[in-house]
Amino acid sequence: MSEPFLIVGGDAAGMSAASKARRAAPDREIIVLERGDWVSYGACGLPYYVKGEIESLEDLVAVPPERFIEERDIDLRMGHEGIAIDTDARTVTVRSDEETYEQSYGDLLIATGARALEPPIDGLDLEGVFTLHSMDAGAEIKACVESEDLDRVAVIGGGYVGIEMAEAFDAHGLDVTVFEMLPQVLATFGESVGEAVGDHLREQGVDVRLSTRVERLAGDGAIEAVETDDGTVPVDAALVGAGVVPNAELAEQAGIELGETGAIATDEYGRTNVEDVYAAGDVAEMTHTVTGKPDHVPLALTANRAGRAIGQTVTGTETPVGEIAGTAVVKAFDLAAARTGITDEAEARKAGFDPVSVTINAPSRAHYYPGGDKLELTMVADRETEQVLGASIVGRDGVAKRIDTVATALHEGMTVEEVEYLDLAYAPPFSPTWDPVLTTAKVLNGKLE
Amino acid sequence: MSEPFLIVGGDAAGMSAASKARRAAPDREIIVLERGDWVSYGACGLPYYVKGEIESLEDLVAVPPERFIEERDIDLRMGHEGIAIDTDARTVTVRSDEETYEQSYGDLLIATGARALEPPIDGLDLEGVFTLHSMDAGAEIKACVESEDLDRVAVIGGGYVGIEMAEAFDAHGLDVTVFEMLPQVLATFGESVGEAVGDHLREQGVDVRLSTRVERLAGDGAIEAVETDDGTVPVDAALVGAGVVPNAELAEQAGIELGETGAIATDEYGRTNVEDVYAAGDVAEMTHTVTGKPDHVPLALTANRAGRAIGQTVTGTETPVGEIAGTAVVKAFDLAAARTGITDEAEARKAGFDPVSVTINAPSRAHYYPGGDKLELTMVADRETEQVLGASIVGRDGVAKRIDTVATALHEGMTVEEVEYLDLAYAPPFSPTWDPVLTTAKVLNGKLE
Repeated sequence: MSEPFLIVGGDAAGMSAASKARRAAPDREIIVLERGDWVSYGACGLPYYVKGEIESLEDLVAVPPERFIEERDIDLRMGHEGIAIDTDARTVTVRSDEETYEQSYGDLLIATGARALEPPIDGLDLEGVFTLHSMDAGAEIKACVESEDLDRVAVIGGGYVGIEMAEAFDAHGLDVTVFEMLPQVLATFGESVGEAVGDHLREQGVDVRLSTRVERLAGDGAIEAVETDDGTVPVDAALVGAGVVPNAELAEQAGIELGETGAIATDEYGRTNVEDVYAAGDVAEMTHTVTGKPDHVPLALTANRAGRAIGQTVTGTETPVGEIAGTAVVKAFDLAAARTGITDEAEARKAGFDPVSVTINAPSRAHYYPGGDKLELTMVADRETEQVLGASIVGRDGVAKRIDTVATALHEGMTVEEVEYLDLAYAPPFSPTWDPVLTTAKVLNGKLE
Repeated sequence: MSEPFLIVGGDAAGMSAASKARRAAPDREIIVLERGDWVSYGACGLPYYVKGEIESLEDLVAVPPERFIEERDIDLRMGHEGIAIDTDARTVTVRSDEETYEQSYGDLLIATGARALEPPIDGLDLEGVFTLHSMDAGAEIKACVESEDLDRVAVIGGGYVGIEMAEAFDAHGLDVTVFEMLPQVLATFGESVGEAVGDHLREQGVDVRLSTRVERLAGDGAIEAVETDDGTVPVDAALVGAGVVPNAELAEQAGIELGETGAIATDEYGRTNVEDVYAAGDVAEMTHTVTGKPDHVPLALTANRAGRAIGQTVTGTETPVGEIAGTAVVKAFDLAAARTGITDEAEARKAGFDPVSVTINAPSRAHYYPGGDKLELTMVADRETEQVLGASIVGRDGVAKRIDTVATALHEGMTVEEVEYLDLAYAPPFSPTWDPVLTTAKVLNGKLE
């Protein structure tokens, strides 16, 4: 019998790999090491748990541990952490509360995920300062917002976690201040989305402070204020959402190559530079379908899909992990903001393109049909190849799944004109005759001619 | 100066062509003959006008006649009908209330649209029997439903117009019976959609009679009953929505070639077999992107787009009219049903494919996020090429724009696996991690292996 398929990390990538490998190889020994108390959970749901729309943390669990163990016959070891890899001996050193031991492997998947980035400021260890990158953290924040003596809360970082958490805190009647270093929120969504979402947050009563650098979290034991380069704001709690960093140390110490992004470098099958060692999920790089270059965009679908593919590959069916387009959507109160590919000219230029872009407004439904909203769309193309490089959409109605049309176009390397000529769905309750994506391509095509 | 660009028919295709030609050729003489009283109107909005969601017929007009005439300098002749074409003399015989005259042309666009199909039954001329294919008909129906002595209404034909009108009548508190010859409503949407929508109509209190042939509309002056092969149903009014037929007689009598569908045969630039004579919109065939063959799918976007392209072509920039995928979406009370390409195996076999298909259920949002619904998706592929041939989706949440991802895939000839590997947008309020389209492709791909 072959040596075990050993997986370090029991969330999306790890458990997808384990489940797929089990289906493909009913007799293979499959071991998952999970240092925490949760596996296969939807961290993306945590803001809505804090907000109160989701009753219990258990609701976020896709598959409970017992089912992996009993139904799928996966040797899931909770509270067990992989602390070192010996790629020559093909072993992982494992530590649990009870013991430390060597676990041998035939194939190894590193799926250790990412953690919240801690910005280089003092005060992160004060009471009432949180990050949101684990189920337990979600529970602590929920308990905190439900306590009676909380009035003012800081959100440090205007990325998608920051925006979602601003909405969650606001739902509890708290005064929310968002601090963002850059001149816009949701920087990766491009300027037009950032402006629309920033304005909308303010309409909702959120204090949004752009181009503001947080210098220190101040307090005596518990947080009392956020000190910035533009003054001090008293707060009772703070959520730090400054991005994530891959948990790549375990791999790096074992001599496994990291990419420029700091995540583990992988090939099209999720293989690292070391034989029989794979990486997937938030700890790994993926190939970006527009640039063709490695990128680090830690999102749930990517993790799921890559894990699944690796589960197939190690059981005998070589399966590519696929490419990413950086497609994402975020809810910000009544707005939805979506992006895919490259969303502004500066980013396109950096990637070596000669960009041209447009930003337009278009109605989400027929002009005469009630309930629609004005969408704002940006589309970027390369002047030479006329290929679409990316797009963003922001608005109240029909945003999330409209971006998927552009994401599909990116995977296929479609030109602006090819997008303009797509036969998309129309009926007055759902779209104007020319879908806003088509209209954007039409206007952009006019600029290319 | 060149001879005029003459357009017969002033709705979507005609007015798009006129407007585009005007922008491209500021000095060209552009004449539009419109036999009716309305131009550039959204007939697709009529059911919602009857329902009461749209206040006035004027709201359905995209651009009022004065603007075409005054701002765009288009010689729009309302109440003027083209009644004969002499392709040798390059003239159209025009009749108005005042006169009959010959109008010469340099380029001619036939955009005469389609009319409601009249099934071969007696009683269509009774009072209270309507079709919905003009603004005036919409006004008559609206007046009828608002009269006090109407209780029971028949909808003859369970296509999309029939479904939309059933909803409109129901909103006025009328008892609605839908009569459909076939064993399902929305036949072109495939079986799974037909069943879901049929069930939903019944839940809403609509009497749905499938596999029922209407033999006669009975009444003395006004309609009193619908006689079918399965009994007689007393009604106070009837809407006949039995499909449409292209208004191709004008072209046919001039020796312009029709295709097998009965619509005017055209090439990729919308040209007919006669030099300088074009056809577009509901009267013309288009090339189907999946079969590569001519097809007749009279929908608004196609008309708009083809008209626009021809407006460019006749003013010096040859522009293809594009291909169609048969993409459509319809609202049926709380459900939306969408389709693109080929939606069932029988249809695929008829088109020469070796089909394989799946129908699955998938949640529209993360399982733990409130407000989502179970979607039902069908996807059809060709076993040999593994290309996606089409899909349908039905459900309450996030249906309309999800079909566009598949429509895009059809235009690109993507395989099932390529669709499975798309990087689509995910956030709990909008989608599960694996979008239902991806899940469908994944399951279908499993069947292909």
